[in-house]
Formats: sequence, C-alpha cells, structure tokens
Amino acid sequence: MTYDLVVRNGTVVTASDMSRCAVGVKDGRIIALANDLPQGSRDIDASGKLILPGGIDSHCHIEQMSAAGIVNADDFYSGTMSAAFGGTTTVIPFAAQHRGQSLRDVVHDYHLCAEPKAVIDYAFHLIISDPTEDVLKQELPALIQEGYTSFKVYLTYDLLKIDDYQMLDILAMARREQAMVMVHAENHDIIQWLSARLLEAGHRAPKYHAVAHARLAEGEATNRAIRLAELLDVPLLLVHVSAPEAVEAIRTAQTYGLKIYGETCPQYLFLTAQDLDRPGMDGAMFCCSPPPRDEASQEVIWRGLQNGTFQVISSDHAPYRFDSTGKLAHGEDADFKHIANGLPGLEVRLPLLFSEGVKKGRLDLHQFVALTSTNAAKLYGLHPRKGTITVGADADLAIWDPDKEVTISTDMIHDNVGYTPYEGYRVTGWPVTVLSRGRVVIEDGELQVERGSGVFLPCALPDMAKPLGQRVSELNPERNFGAQLI
Amino acid sequence: MTYDLVVRNGTVVTASDMSRCAVGVKDGRIIALANDLPQGSRDIDASGKLILPGGIDSHCHIEQMSAAGIVNADDFYSGTMSAAFGGTTTVIPFAAQHRGQSLRDVVHDYHLCAEPKAVIDYAFHLIISDPTEDVLKQELPALIQEGYTSFKVYLTYDLLKIDDYQMLDILAMARREQAMVMVHAENHDIIQWLSARLLEAGHRAPKYHAVAHARLAEGEATNRAIRLAELLDVPLLLVHVSAPEAVEAIRTAQTYGLKIYGETCPQYLFLTAQDLDRPGMDGAMFCCSPPPRDEASQEVIWRGLQNGTFQVISSDHAPYRFDSTGKLAHGEDADFKHIANGLPGLEVRLPLLFSEGVKKGRLDLHQFVALTSTNAAKLYGLHPRKGTITVGADADLAIWDPDKEVTISTDMIHDNVGYTPYEGYRVTGWPVTVLSRGRVVIEDGELQVERGSGVFLPCALPDMAKPLGQRVSELNPERNFGAQLI
Amino acid sequence: MTYDLVVRNGTVVTASDMSRCAVGVKDGRIIALANDLPQGSRDIDASGKLILPGGIDSHCHIEQMSAAGIVNADDFYSGTMSAAFGGTTTVIPFAAQHRGQSLRDVVHDYHLCAEPKAVIDYAFHLIISDPTEDVLKQELPALIQEGYTSFKVYLTYDLLKIDDYQMLDILAMARREQAMVMVHAENHDIIQWLSARLLEAGHRAPKYHAVAHARLAEGEATNRAIRLAELLDVPLLLVHVSAPEAVEAIRTAQTYGLKIYGETCPQYLFLTAQDLDRPGMDGAMFCCSPPPRDEASQEVIWRGLQNGTFQVISSDHAPYRFDSTGKLAHGEDADFKHIANGLPGLEVRLPLLFSEGVKKGRLDLHQFVALTSTNAAKLYGLHPRKGTITVGADADLAIWDPDKEVTISTDMIHDNVGYTPYEGYRVTGWPVTVLSRGRVVIEDGELQVERGSGVFLPCALPDMAKPLGQRVSELNPERNFGAQLI
Amino acid sequence: MTYDLVVRNGTVVTASDMSRCAVGVKDGRIIALANDLPQGSRDIDASGKLILPGGIDSHCHIEQMSAAGIVNADDFYSGTMSAAFGGTTTVIPFAAQHRGQSLRDVVHDYHLCAEPKAVIDYAFHLIISDPTEDVLKQELPALIQEGYTSFKVYLTYDLLKIDDYQMLDILAMARREQAMVMVHAENHDIIQWLSARLLEAGHRAPKYHAVAHARLAEGEATNRAIRLAELLDVPLLLVHVSAPEAVEAIRTAQTYGLKIYGETCPQYLFLTAQDLDRPGMDGAMFCCSPPPRDEASQEVIWRGLQNGTFQVISSDHAPYRFDSTGKLAHGEDADFKHIANGLPGLEVRLPLLFSEGVKKGRLDLHQFVALTSTNAAKLYGLHPRKGTITVGADADLAIWDPDKEVTISTDMIHDNVGYTPYEGYRVTGWPVTVLSRGRVVIEDGELQVERGSGVFLPCALPDMAKPLGQRVSELNPERNFGAQLI
Repeated sequence: MTYDLVVRNGTVVTASDMSRCAVGVKDGRIIALANDLPQGSRDIDASGKLILPGGIDSHCHIEQMSAAGIVNADDFYSGTMSAAFGGTTTVIPFAAQHRGQSLRDVVHDYHLCAEPKAVIDYAFHLIISDPTEDVLKQELPALIQEGYTSFKVYLTYDLLKIDDYQMLDILAMARREQAMVMVHAENHDIIQWLSARLLEAGHRAPKYHAVAHARLAEGEATNRAIRLAELLDVPLLLVHVSAPEAVEAIRTAQTYGLKIYGETCPQYLFLTAQDLDRPGMDGAMFCCSPPPRDEASQEVIWRGLQNGTFQVISSDHAPYRFDSTGKLAHGEDADFKHIANGLPGLEVRLPLLFSEGVKKGRLDLHQFVALTSTNAAKLYGLHPRKGTITVGADADLAIWDPDKEVTISTDMIHDNVGYTPYEGYRVTGWPVTVLSRGRVVIEDGELQVERGSGVFLPCALPDMAKPLGQRVSELNPERNFGAQLI
Repeated sequence: MTYDLVVRNGTVVTASDMSRCAVGVKDGRIIALANDLPQGSRDIDASGKLILPGGIDSHCHIEQMSAAGIVNADDFYSGTMSAAFGGTTTVIPFAAQHRGQSLRDVVHDYHLCAEPKAVIDYAFHLIISDPTEDVLKQELPALIQEGYTSFKVYLTYDLLKIDDYQMLDILAMARREQAMVMVHAENHDIIQWLSARLLEAGHRAPKYHAVAHARLAEGEATNRAIRLAELLDVPLLLVHVSAPEAVEAIRTAQTYGLKIYGETCPQYLFLTAQDLDRPGMDGAMFCCSPPPRDEASQEVIWRGLQNGTFQVISSDHAPYRFDSTGKLAHGEDADFKHIANGLPGLEVRLPLLFSEGVKKGRLDLHQFVALTSTNAAKLYGLHPRKGTITVGADADLAIWDPDKEVTISTDMIHDNVGYTPYEGYRVTGWPVTVLSRGRVVIEDGELQVERGSGVFLPCALPDMAKPLGQRVSELNPERNFGAQLI
Repeated sequence: MTYDLVVRNGTVVTASDMSRCAVGVKDGRIIALANDLPQGSRDIDASGKLILPGGIDSHCHIEQMSAAGIVNADDFYSGTMSAAFGGTTTVIPFAAQHRGQSLRDVVHDYHLCAEPKAVIDYAFHLIISDPTEDVLKQELPALIQEGYTSFKVYLTYDLLKIDDYQMLDILAMARREQAMVMVHAENHDIIQWLSARLLEAGHRAPKYHAVAHARLAEGEATNRAIRLAELLDVPLLLVHVSAPEAVEAIRTAQTYGLKIYGETCPQYLFLTAQDLDRPGMDGAMFCCSPPPRDEASQEVIWRGLQNGTFQVISSDHAPYRFDSTGKLAHGEDADFKHIANGLPGLEVRLPLLFSEGVKKGRLDLHQFVALTSTNAAKLYGLHPRKGTITVGADADLAIWDPDKEVTISTDMIHDNVGYTPYEGYRVTGWPVTVLSRGRVVIEDGELQVERGSGVFLPCALPDMAKPLGQRVSELNPERNFGAQLI
Repeated sequence: MTYDLVVRNGTVVTASDMSRCAVGVKDGRIIALANDLPQGSRDIDASGKLILPGGIDSHCHIEQMSAAGIVNADDFYSGTMSAAFGGTTTVIPFAAQHRGQSLRDVVHDYHLCAEPKAVIDYAFHLIISDPTEDVLKQELPALIQEGYTSFKVYLTYDLLKIDDYQMLDILAMARREQAMVMVHAENHDIIQWLSARLLEAGHRAPKYHAVAHARLAEGEATNRAIRLAELLDVPLLLVHVSAPEAVEAIRTAQTYGLKIYGETCPQYLFLTAQDLDRPGMDGAMFCCSPPPRDEASQEVIWRGLQNGTFQVISSDHAPYRFDSTGKLAHGEDADFKHIANGLPGLEVRLPLLFSEGVKKGRLDLHQFVALTSTNAAKLYGLHPRKGTITVGADADLAIWDPDKEVTISTDMIHDNVGYTPYEGYRVTGWPVTVLSRGRVVIEDGELQVERGSGVFLPCALPDMAKPLGQRVSELNPERNFGAQLI
C-alpha cells in the first residue's frame, strides 16, 4: 500500500496531546500516525512546523442575505477560500429561515449556493425565525435526521426574534430530538428603547450602536435563556458572548452543573467600543451585535477561555463591504440603526488567537486546538471525523509556522469584504500549508483546489446536546421539572 | 391643655427604640411622650401591654374587580374593619387601571368606594396596565403630585402585563417624577407554556397552579426587572416574593449597592404548595400568585426578613369567597387556570408574624415594627405621619397583649371571605385595642367607629424612590448609563 | 414638677424617626418629648438645629500603653474632652490585658485612670491576650456579670495574637456567657512574611506598612474568624474593616443568615495608602492596622455602610504624637515595623461622616444616627439608656448645626496628639452644643464640665450576642454543630 | 522492522479523541497508530475492547510509615501489583520527610524500597514537614532538577503540619523553581479543639472522627491555602477534596482566573460518614482524612468532576490492616484519635469510576481518561510520556472490557490490606489486560512480570506549575503582588 500523502517531521498537536510523528493519508483520511512512514505519493516536510487539526469555524454567515435585505459580501467561494487561507478547513454557516419560509426550501437553497463554490467542507446550522407547528413537528425532526442537528435562534432583531414561549417550544423540540440549540441573547426591548432615546436626542453616529446594545441587555437575555433551558433540562450554547455579565451567568450555570456552553469571537478580544468611534463613518466597519466592549471586558473574555467557561471561539464572520452594497446601504449619514451588523473574520480568527493566546502564554496549544477546532466538532456532531488528528479522521491539517511574522492588512485577506477590522495588527504564527481531506488546499500562498471541491457534512446528534436527565441541584427541587411535561 | 387621650403604663416600641412611657394624644396626633402625663379626656391603661405603631398593610386588594371580572369579596368596610381587628391602621390598596381606562377616572372611582366605608386611613397605589403616552406624560405626573406616588406593574397576566419596553417607559417616568415602582415579577411565557402542557396532559387540579407558576419563572422575571431598573438607575420594589431564586437576585443587587427593595407575605412563611393539594377543590382556597413554595423556601424567606433583604411584609389580601362568586366562579371542576388568584390575610398578618417571628425569637420587636409598619411608611411617603410613635405622628396605635393566645378560625375573622387559609393556627400575642388618629377603633372585641371615618392619605414623594444618581459599581462602567438618556 | 432642662425648637432624629418637638430632662434623663413643654430650669433653643443622640465611639484606645510599650498620647481627660467636642457622649475604650496579667487587675487599673478624668460616660471592652483557664472560667464570667460584656481579640501582633484554638475557647466562653466578641482580623504570618521580604529588600519607609498589611491578609483572617464563629454558632463583630475582601466575607455570611457584624472607621473612607507615602517620615502619621487602602476600596466601604453590611463606624482612635514619645520612638529613620500603629479620630469621626455621608446624600440622617450611636448601644448592651432619644434614656444629646462650615486643623482639635490626618478637610455640619446626662458639656466652643464628671456604664448582655440556636443553612447540615459540644 | 507488540481491533481512547486502530509497540514505546499494522512479535486482539491509557495514581502512600509510627500494609510489590490489576500503570507515591530528616536521605530510602519491588513505573512526590533553610535553598532545588518536581505539605497533623509562614516560604520556593505544590487542607486547631471536646464528653467511637474533621475545617483551610497561593501567584493543587465548602473555594478561585487545581478520591463519591458508624470498631476501616461526608456532598463532588473543577481523581491509598499492626494498633477500644488514618483504593479506583461515572452517564470516556490519567501526567511533568496513547508515548495500556461485571470483594483484591471499603459493590467494566512499556503486566487474571521490573520516572517541570505572571483581577490591584518580593 502506498500513502497518498505523508506529512513528516512535524509536531502533531491535538486538544490533549503532542507527538513528533509522521501522518499518513489515504483516500482523504488519516490512516497512520507513526514514528516513521514510507514515502507517500506526495510527501510534505513539516520540519519545525506544528501540525494542527484544521480549524472549524462554527459560526459564520456566508452568502446570507440579512433579514433587512443587505447583501452579504462573501459567497461560498470567497468565504471558504478566505477561511482556508487562515487555517480553517470546515465552516458551519447558517441556512437562515425568513418568516414564512419552509425550512426545507431554505436548506435546499443554501445547498445550491454552497455546492458549486465551496473549497473546503461545510455543514449547516439552521436559523429558525418562524417556529410554526409544521416547522417544529415535521420539518425540523426530519432535517435533524438528515444531518442538520443544530440551530440558532435570536432573542433580538425585529425580523428574527422569538419570544420566550417560542423559545420553550424550540427547547422542548430540541430535547426530544437531542439537537443543539444556539442562542443570540440580547434583550430586544432594551436595545429598542435605548435606540429610540438616542435617536430622539440626535445621537446617530456608529458609536451609539455600542451604547444601545448595552452590556445589561446581553446579560439579561443570557440569564433568561439559561433559565428557560434549565426549566426544560436542555443544553444550550450562548453564542458570540461579549459582556462580563453574560460570562458570569454562563459560569454560574456551569458551576451549578447545568450543560450551558459558551462561544466568543476575536472581536471581543481585540476590539473595543472605541473602534466604533473612529472618524466619520469608519466606525461602521466595527458595528456588530453584540458590539465590542472595553478592555476590562476583554480580560474577562480571556479568562473565560482560560478557565473553560467558553468551549469555542468562532469568527461570526458577517461580511458587508464598506460601500453602498453593505455598510453604507442607507447612505453616508445613516444612523446607527441602519448600518448592517457584522464584521469579517474567517481568515484571521486562528492567527489572532494563536499569536495573542499561545505565543503570549495565555493559552497552551492544546487549549488553542480545542477552542478552535475539536470542541466545535464535538458540539455539532462532527467529531472525530473533524476536529482532531487521529487515525480514521479526515486529513484536515493546518501546518503552522509558529514563528512566521505577518502584518494583517486588507491586501492579503482573501474574502470579498474590502476591509479588515484588524488592519495593521502584527501577529506571529501562520498556517503555511492547509490540507482538506488530504488535498492540499493552500500552499505557497496560493489556493490549490477547484471551486466546489468542498463537500457537505451531515452532522450526527451531538452527545453534548443530551439532557442531564436528572435533577441537578439541591438548591431547587423544581429544577428541570418542566422536562417531565415534554 | 387637656389631652384627648392618654395611653399609660405600656411599653412603646418603635423600629429603633423601646420606652416605658405615657402617650398623650390631642386632635388625633401624638403630642407628648413622657414619663408621666396628666389625666386625659380618656385614659387607657396599657399595663403589661406593648404599644406598637398600627400596622400598615401596603399591599392589599379591596373592592377591586379582577381583570377577569371576578368580584372581590371585601369592600372598604369589611376590608378595613378586618385589618383594624388585626392591628392594622393604614391600608394602601390599589386603584387598578384596566386597559383603555383613564387613570384619573380609576382613581375617582376608587375614592367613591373608599370614602363612605373605610374605618381606618388609606392611601392608593395605582396599577398601570396601559402605559399610553397620555398616561405617562399627563395623568401620572399630575396624580403623583396629588399624592399617588407609587404604582404597580405586572410582568404576567394577559390583561395586565407590560413588556420590557413599557417597563422602561414606566421606570423612566418614575425616575423623572421620583415615584416608587412596584413590580409583580413572574415570567408570563413560562407560566403560559407550562399551563398549556399541564392542561394538555389532563392536569387540571388546583395543585398544578403551583407547578405552572414555577420558581424559575419568578426568579427569571425578578432578575429581569432588576436589570431594567439598574439600566435606568431607578429604585424598584419586588412585591410578594416567594422563591429563593428571587431572594437571591434581590440580595445580590443590594450587595452591589442598587436600591432594590423586597416585600414578602405571610403565605410564603406559613403555607406551602402542599396546601394546594388538599382534597377536592379545597386547594383552590390557597391559589395565589406566586404560589406558596416549600419548607426550604420558607426558611429562605425568614432569613430575608432577618438580614434586611426584605423591607416589608404585607398581606397581598386578594379575597374571593369559596363559592360561585369567587373561587368557584367557573364551577366545581374548573381547571387551575380558571380559579381566581388570591388569599385573604388583612387580619392575621400581624398576629402570625408576631407569634412566629417575635415570640419564637426569629425577629426582635424592632424588626417586627419596621417590617409591618415603619418601612412601609417610608417606602410610600407616609412617614413620619404614619408608621411610628413619635411626637407629631398620627396616634395610630396597636396595643398588644403579647401573651394572649388565640386560635385562628373563620368565625373570628371580620372580612367577608368565609374562610381563612390559617384555620386552626394557634398564635400568641394579639392587638387588643387599636387606635386610629386617637380614635378607639377596636376595643373589647368590637368595632367602635363608624363607616367612612377613615381618611384618605396623600403620599409624599418617598426618599427611598430617589435614584442613586451615580455609578454604583466598578464592575460595569456602563451601569445606569441609560439614566442619562431620560 | 420643673424640668432641669428643656431643649426646644429643634428636630429630634433617631435611628428610625424624625420629630419636631421639645425635649424635657430631669435628673439626667429624658422624661418628656412633646409638642411643647413648660420652661425648664434651663432652656436651650435649638431652632434650625438637629438634635441627635450623642455619638458612641465604641472602638478607641485611651490611656493605653501599646503592647510594645509606646505611650498613648491621650489620657481620659484629653480623650473624652476631644470626643465631646465632636459630638460623642459615650466612649468604650479597652481595658487591655497583657500576657500574664489578671483581667481583674487590668480592669481595676483602667478604672483608676478613667474615674478622675473622664468628662463623658464610658464603658470598657476587655482585650484578651492570654486566655488561660483562669481567665476563661473564672475572671471573664464574673466580669461579664459586672458589666464588661464585650471583648476584643487579635489574630495578629506578636504580643497579642491568639491562635485558632484559643479563638475557639474564647468563642465557646462567649456563647456560654452571651457576651460579644470583637476581632481584629489580619493574617499574622502573611504580614510577618511580607515584612521580612520587604526589609530584606531594603524597603523601610512608612508606605511599606500598607504593603505588608496586604488586603489578602485581612480577607483571609476575616473569613477564618467567621468560620470559627459559624462552627460554634457565636455572633462575631469584625472591627475596623478596610478591605473589599473582608467586606465580601462579612456580607456573604450575613446573606447566609449568620450573625456576623461589621465595623469600619473614617480612615477607610477618607484616607488611602497614598497618604503613607508622604515625604520623609510624614507617612508615619497615617500608619494604622489595617492600613487605608485605595479609592475603589473606599467605595466598597461606603456601599457597606449604605446596604447594612456594617452596623457601626468608630474612630479606632489610637493616638501617638509625631515625636519621640510616639510615632518616632524608634528614631527618625525607623523602619515601618517600628512605627506605632494608630491614628487619632475621636473628635472628627462624626463631622466627617455627617458632611460626606449625610450632606452628600450617601446616607440619610437615620442611618447616620444608627451607625454612629444607636447600633453601638445595641451591640454592647447600653441601649436604650444610650444611643437614642427616647423617654427614659440618658439625656445625651448632640445639637448639630447642619450648615456650619468648618475646616479641620490641628489647632482646633482637643486631643493631645498634635496632628490630625484630616488637616485641611472642609466639612459642613458640626455639633455646637453637647449634653451628657443633661449636663451641658460643650457650649460656645468650650468645655463646661469638670474632670471626672463622666461615669462608668456597666453593660448588659446584648441581645445581638445571642446565638442563633438553630441550624441556619440547608447548605451544610454540620453548620454550628460545634455548639452542641460547648 | 517488526513490532514487538501490536494491539489491534480495539477502540483507542484519549482525553480528547477516539479511534478504531491498531497500536504498534517497539522498545516499550508506541511507534505507530494505524488503520492496520503487520503482525508483531506478539499480537493482542482487543476486539470489543477499549484501549485506554494506563491509569496514573498520583496520590498514594506505599511503604510509608505514618508520622505516628504505624506500619503501612503495602510494600512496593503488593502496592504496585494491586494498582496494575486495577488498570493503573504509574504510581506517584510520597517520599515523606519526618522532621529532622534530610530530604535527600528520604529520597534515597524510598528508592531502596521501590527499585527491587515495583512492577509498574513510579515517580515520587516529596512530603515536606521540615522546611529548613537547607531544605528550601539547597536540597529542594537540587532534587527538583533531578525529577522530584512536586511536593505535598500538610496544614494539619501534629508531626507534619506547617504554619502559614512556612507555607509562604514553600510557595515562594515553588515559584522560583516552578515545581508543583500539593496541600492537605484542614484547619488543625478546629480538629484538635473538636476532638478534645468530643473526648471530654466521652465520644470515642470511630464515627466521631468524621465529627472532629468538620467540613468547615476543610473549607477554611482550603480558602486559606488558596489565598496564600494567590498572594505569591503560585499554582496550587488541593488534594483529596471532600467538602462542598472546599469545592466552592476552588471553583471560585478558578472563576477569578487563578491556577488552582483540585483532586478528589473515590471515597468521597462512594462512602459517607455513615460508614464510620458501623458496628463495633468496623467504622475504623473507613477512617481517613478528610472523612467521607454525606450524599449531598457526593453530588457536589460529582458535579466538580463534570464541570472541570477537579482535574484528577486519585486513590489516596493509605493502607492499614484491620488488626494490631494497623487500624487497631492502639487496641480494640482505641478512641477515634488513635486510629490510623487511611483507606486502601489502588485497585478499585478506576473500575469504580468507570462503572458509576462512564456507564451511568455522569462522565464521558474522555473525561474518564483525563481525570484518571492524562491530567495527572500533565500536572506532574510526565506528559506525553505517560497519560495518553500517542506516538512516542510509553506503551502503558489498559485494555478494558466495558461490559464485564465484577463484584468487589476482599478476596479478589491484590493489596495486602485484608479488607476493602467497597466490599460487595457491583461494577461494570474492568481492565482485563494491562501493559506497561509494552510489557504485559496483567493478563488472564495473573501478574505476568517480575518484581522490580518497574522503573523510576524523573518528572519534568510541569507547565501547569507556571505562575500566571500577571495580575489576574480587576477586583484587587494588590493581587499577586507578593510575587514581586520573591
């Protein structure tokens, strides 16, 4: 037998272990890890390099039209290419239901977008904005069986938000089907109320976006979502967490034994609300929800990555060009309510975290791998096919030069956004060669594969979505009792 | 000068102090406290007795029609008489707006009810269920100036509940006017969702009322209300608190320096959800919202009284007869959603707390006075006219025999409800003589005054409703920043 | 009958109430509070003034030699005179046992000091540094019966500290006798270890005193003392609390229902560790234990006063002159371990708190009275004779001009210390006339009474020292079980 | 090349991953993991089996004489054999210094014991009871360099305990050398005081051991140890944690970002204080320190394993025979203070946790591996040589039959203790074949290797012992400042 590919002389790192060994690949899968291996059809010398599982970006928006109709800057080609250049080999974007739509149709449409363009593998989360009986009882159970085992709901945004009653319906369904629920937790009314007051007072600039999206709004909704999940004993993932109040609510729930998970994003580690106050409309480039907070909040987010409060860090890539197709769709003097929400980040997520986390001693390499790849695979039913380097797994490898110095600039980024919020950041460490199912995707700074060569990944039911199935606390004998009613 | 009345030889107790002295009354007011006083027109010998400020029952429903149209069992005559027999000399019932009503009209109507019947003094809280611009900008500011300085809102009940946006509007108005906001905090959707599931499963009995009104529903809404108040830096009073989760939220807010107040009721100290499971429909007599919880919760409530988490204990008297006019208005086999919510308690509130609190060593006499009278006067702008025994205050005195043993029974209760939830309780200590503005209201077990002899009390703006006016926490630099927008 | 004295036209304030009334005094006691009173042998017009209970300074060191032999600057004449000028009418200094001494002898000696000199009334706490069997089983029970019902122990200082075993012995004794235990809680070993490292590194200046007495040392010892008290179910008072960590430990214990009390001092509200870094040896004037912290800590202390975590604010007056008899006893270049610990504060305690607390809206007048007078009387068994204005109480009155502006300076202070840490502070509000048992002590800026005219106050057993007598928490079924072994 | 051994057809599990693959071994090390491998010199068919990293028992006492002179029942032969039968392939017992001893001599002596007898590999922790300057400045730095990179200290036991000052010395040394500190945290004085009271009252039975070692004593000392570590910014491992109060202190420290680690033991999951109350002296078999608690505490310990509060579960095997050589050395009616402390557990640690943890759904297989093997290797500088299954690691494999049912009984246990606390427990899952460095140690229920075939493992400096090197909290700007003085 001949290996299709052997990667040798590198240091293989997983969420748990580290090993100097050769990686042997056949038919897209890792079939051997060994001290030494015979020559493969292709050999890659990874001397002095780290061989990491390719990143999984489990929260990104690609080829998605905003509920308000603003066009997303990236399609599956530019988006997945950009991800690959940054060491990511799997993306899990959203198939987003608008109200009135059939989820089945939505999924169909997104497949039509992705299939001809994606250069790396992909799965889909569903976004549920219209939890009709048909959706809950018919479409979702069927789609879950077909590999769409996670979905996201919003507690804010006029066109997407669900109320607590709907949230309970969705949680109950998730419990029955053992699918994973993700929640965007901000208190809609707080945001709307503050926005109205701000606009009344003539405060229109981008920086007021961060004022309107108060930390208390995020903390409140996070607590509420956790209580609803607790009532029905359903695991829940709080996505793109930015506020210390939210971190505290998640941590406390974990302390009491609840299966509550947390995700954060680079923008909450590397940006602040000050960035929204750049001259003119430049602050619009940094408008996302929740918004970046302050330096003390950044420290709290780092601590949450260090002590296990967060399981995953994703990009929440939501790309809008800084022009009339995107950020400025409502004109150069649009008020902060009329600026499309979102930041690009698919490509720089891993390098930023590697440089500031691993190289500066905040995280070890195993934490880095777990947070950027392995845990996402486990949360969404892709492990061990994705998210690690082990015999039988897909050969999705990012070969890192841990000492390569790079200055981030728009020029070098491969998405279609036209700006990066991290312009000028200097990072150390970069993925120089990236493999997907044994295919060399990125090498010598070039994309090496064809459009549409990525494949769809149906997801299994994740163990992490299993309910506790027991009362978890002596504090409240009623806890989880709602689960008995489902 | 001759005193109209002298009460001598008793021990005068206030929220702070204790003194063996005579109390001299003229024109309804206390004008002297002294070692000795000359004979008054009338002399009362209080040897061996405690002279306490008459109780203030600051949360009770009198002559109020439920939003669903069920008739309240007590009018201002029976209600205030019953209160007086139990040592209460001031009531603050609600003038309750139904949607579409003018608050001004509502207030007018309640005055028509109270004026000819009340035997003790009264003020009114407003209930706001329809916070229109007119209500918020015109009616309320005017009514507040006229002495209606507190109002209650509901986060649950279909016909009463306000959403978070409306709550912010109301809090902002309260901040501008420096009035006191009271909130009934239960998560409406949780209750509705659980109720629907219970009824679907055929669970109709009264005991399921306590299941549907889960502790988590109260805890969640309590936290949410506090966060909204924090956002705008407005003091807030959580009423009829029953759940440990709610107590914890209140206590934590106080620890962080917020002006958050708490009220509880006897039903959360002396009843449990087991009482709702009495045979047949008897459990209906114990249905109230929030419902009684369990013994561990009772302990948490006691602790909250002891350590200052709660400022006030009221009856939440909401009287419905156990017949077709009240509890059984929807028939003998109504499901738990169709049983009028509420318990009577005006008359036994003080004796129950005195006996189980003071006599059993859980509270000292000063705490008892503060919790049942003084703090309510301060919270609602009636202090020092009401709520204490001091020169210049109204001579509202309850003369207690601290050793009198009484077995509570329906026969002896003077309200119009026809049952008491505390049937058969044996208590020690009872107010044997009760004075209102120097008038002997209760003596020798008889009412001594005429219908309509109580007067309306316009309330001042309470100091306790003043905002902090400063940032209160290093934890969150954004705290209270919403206040700047009001 | 003629009143010896009538104070009229002022506003009488207690911990609970406020009343415009005349105060009638006979034989040193208040015998009437009334709308109006006939002319007394002496009449004082308090128009526009507040009539407050005279302050109780329940933590001060007078005529006490430090364990290291440094002479205290004040004797009972200068000390009590200074207190009186600041509106304080009762002091509770310490009768301090040195190891090997009989407590009985110690008490005798302090009486010899106080009796001929004190101008206001006084009680004594005991300091126990040598809890021998004789002390615990014989001397203390007898002394407690005679009115010495509180005592202080130290967890630090070489010559005073007791270990945890001794602390348990003392707590067990206190429980049996129902006396009040006060504790100076700092971790001795932390302080000694840091001091040794600092001195090794050549850090000798006064400012290193604040470094050695780390906040963590106070937080740790506070937690430890509380746990020991919890084990035996004994109320405990943490004195001179300065660190947020200690405040948190106290607050948490109160939240869980323990009878844990807290005291703080003006130096933790108005000074910081920066003051120890003044030029030359000037920092020595600010050396006390625990040391002043930082501004954030000051805010935490204020919050503890506002939300009831603290019951009392005392001066911890521990006066040493800034010369070779006191602060500089070990020379001009003594290291920080050789500077006598302590600050003066008897005279300015009340004006500082009135000005910064009441006038600036942080505390209301009732809180001011409770914190400076009433609560101390209750904690130490002097209420209601002292600490309030009520019929039967001693006529200890401080008549405040709430608008008088004063700039604090050494010149105007009547102690014997020669400096004030608050030099140049501008305060609003000052006690212009001070009465003790009806005697005018201070008037027109002059002392009006003779040396030795103060009397000794035997203290009753305080209710606040009664054990809970029950298990207080569902969290730990073992809680307080040690109490069964006493 | 021929493999010395191939294990095939099993499911390899690590702390992160799972893979169906063959394991190829050469010269004691894993050199290949692959889909398939050629025949080795020896082939093991693991069909239907789990291949787990051999367990690491990182807290056990072997051939150690108690400070009081009681003989440990196991030598390195019986101890390591017993461990191996239960799936453990590495032990880290203690080289225990008695006061006055040279650590170097102690280490030498333990090597003499271990080398000729151990059948699996071993490292040593040091126990430091006499931290003289020579020990701290000379012996320890040298020994750490030689591979003794962790040491344990006691806050209780007369002959072992160190005071806080010594603890700071040790922590400072650990920080300089970056070694790992383990602490037995119980408050000595509380235990001694309660013991004295109990014995005075005639309470001598074994069950009073659990009363004397109160939960509060463990909670207090845990908090204190953490504060000392925080002061100097030194990672710290709390061993054999049993009390909810201790769990809370550890969890809170982790929440605030401190590097505080926790270890627990099976006796805190499967035994309670009730076991100490078995008839006659049988309770003595369950006396260990800290003692087993109650069922609610067990739940808290489980939760700590689930949510990451604990990193490791060890046996704390401290074996004494239930006869005059061990538990009954002071006679059949010895009081509880004269019963040797400790329980056996080397052999059943893994099967108990596998059965109750993994099979009952409380833990997943990865958590099981992490808690029983991988994390210990990381904590003590043995990873990746030990603690995982990866290329380059020692071939220490436990091949588990996950469905094998076993009833635990003394007969089947291979230690020399003569009883098991878990007599009669039925477990599911057992390691049927155990390999150490590729050698088959256990097979067919028999030991397959010679005495003395285990080797000593010098430990590296663990990354987990590195200080944070930065301030970790906005709460306390002084945090860790002591580290600057080291």
